[in-house]
Amino acid sequence: MKKIKLANISTKPPKDYYDDKKKYKEEQKDMAKEIGELHEIMFAEGKNSLLVVLQGMDTSGKDGATRETFQYCSPNGINATSFKKPTDEEFAHDFLWRVHKLAPAKGTIRVFIRSHYEDVLIQRVHGWIDEEHVSKRINAINAWEELLQFDNNTTILKFYMHLSEERQGEKLQERLDEPDKHWKHNYGDWEERKHWDKYRDAYEDAINRSSVPWIIAPVDSRTYRNWFITKKVLETMRELEMKLPKLAEKES
Amino acid sequence: MKKIKLANISTKPPKDYYDDKKKYKEEQKDMAKEIGELHEIMFAEGKNSLLVVLQGMDTSGKDGATRETFQYCSPNGINATSFKKPTDEEFAHDFLWRVHKLAPAKGTIRVFIRSHYEDVLIQRVHGWIDEEHVSKRINAINAWEELLQFDNNTTILKFYMHLSEERQGEKLQERLDEPDKHWKHNYGDWEERKHWDKYRDAYEDAINRSSVPWIIAPVDSRTYRNWFITKKVLETMRELEMKLPKLAEKES
Repeated sequence: MKKIKLANISTKPPKDYYDDKKKYKEEQKDMAKEIGELHEIMFAEGKNSLLVVLQGMDTSGKDGATRETFQYCSPNGINATSFKKPTDEEFAHDFLWRVHKLAPAKGTIRVFIRSHYEDVLIQRVHGWIDEEHVSKRINAINAWEELLQFDNNTTILKFYMHLSEERQGEKLQERLDEPDKHWKHNYGDWEERKHWDKYRDAYEDAINRSSVPWIIAPVDSRTYRNWFITKKVLETMRELEMKLPKLAEKES
Repeated sequence: MKKIKLANISTKPPKDYYDDKKKYKEEQKDMAKEIGELHEIMFAEGKNSLLVVLQGMDTSGKDGATRETFQYCSPNGINATSFKKPTDEEFAHDFLWRVHKLAPAKGTIRVFIRSHYEDVLIQRVHGWIDEEHVSKRINAINAWEELLQFDNNTTILKFYMHLSEERQGEKLQERLDEPDKHWKHNYGDWEERKHWDKYRDAYEDAINRSSVPWIIAPVDSRTYRNWFITKKVLETMRELEMKLPKLAEKES
């Protein structure tokens, strides 16, 4: 498989986007509606499941993308989980314990806002685990993701929210400047930002050693980001060729 | 690794056992007491965990061995789970989902009475999954057990309760004949017994493809079975070299 080099991939939308932003917005809405319809069929059929993993630096728009992509899905059959610092109980188990519990049941969608990948990113950047441990964890992730695929018809979509360092600076500053965004502001985010290059290297390595391919989503622009992610999710769900079950036979 | 051939391994105790059964009984009791003491240290230290997997045909004594081996452990920090036919919720997930949730936290012991191995035994014997799927599941089991070891200091002890076909016949009949054992009787067990050879082949293959080595426990005699399993558990716990934590520094 060809190795991905993040530095060579743009964080910005293609040129034509700026000519007709409105068109992207409308398309995104239509696609999100179709996702809502397909989600209902998925739930009724109870055969497939979908795991969407959103990973990216602070302010890359994980929450926003979740809201916009799945805005037409009934909460019955979809759930999003934001992974924070592990609890004491989580720390008393292996790093996949807390995510495995939340793997999607057949017929449902699960969104991971941050995920098991944090354990080979933040822990690696800060040197809390050694390189041998990182390798074992990456192998364990690959084995676990394969398990979900072959044993539970789970389709896994992993998005790397590709943001420029410059744009992150602007968005962090917005959180300081705009009272409505104060609840999102965290001084720790400025600290983590200092490790920007280390994080990008850790991401690039994790992406290149993953057996389930990652999708690199350019997220500098909010509208394009939503359009891009919604489109990938929709295309993936269409490929599942799901059907509403027929009327069941009368029980004898 | 040398392949195990179950047909070449005795299900009976060694000769000297019959000369002094009482000695084995007393030794078992003493060893179980030491397990209780070590378990308390394990709990206090909160560093290691132990997963004991008991697999074997019906009447092989999984419940009895659990009771006798861990009789001096406080229930605070140990738990045994009997895995039955999966629930609807469990069926809606991969086969390791229900066992991973129950992996032991640091400082605790978990006993699996039957386990994730049922999914490469009963399902294989009855042809509910194909051989390719069996192989994928065996690989997934190996990866999962490695994860518990390297990422949560979990020691895994897997016992194959090695019973003779003849002895099983006697024990099933006891369940029919003795009113106190009626609650254990199940006509389905006689049906499963018809697949004896297929089960033994499936066990043998699963054992030989496992990365964590299995321990073959001769279980035709109840007292020897308990002595044997208690001894292995005790020896394993001793090797962990656990220590009670020292008095913590006063918080400043």
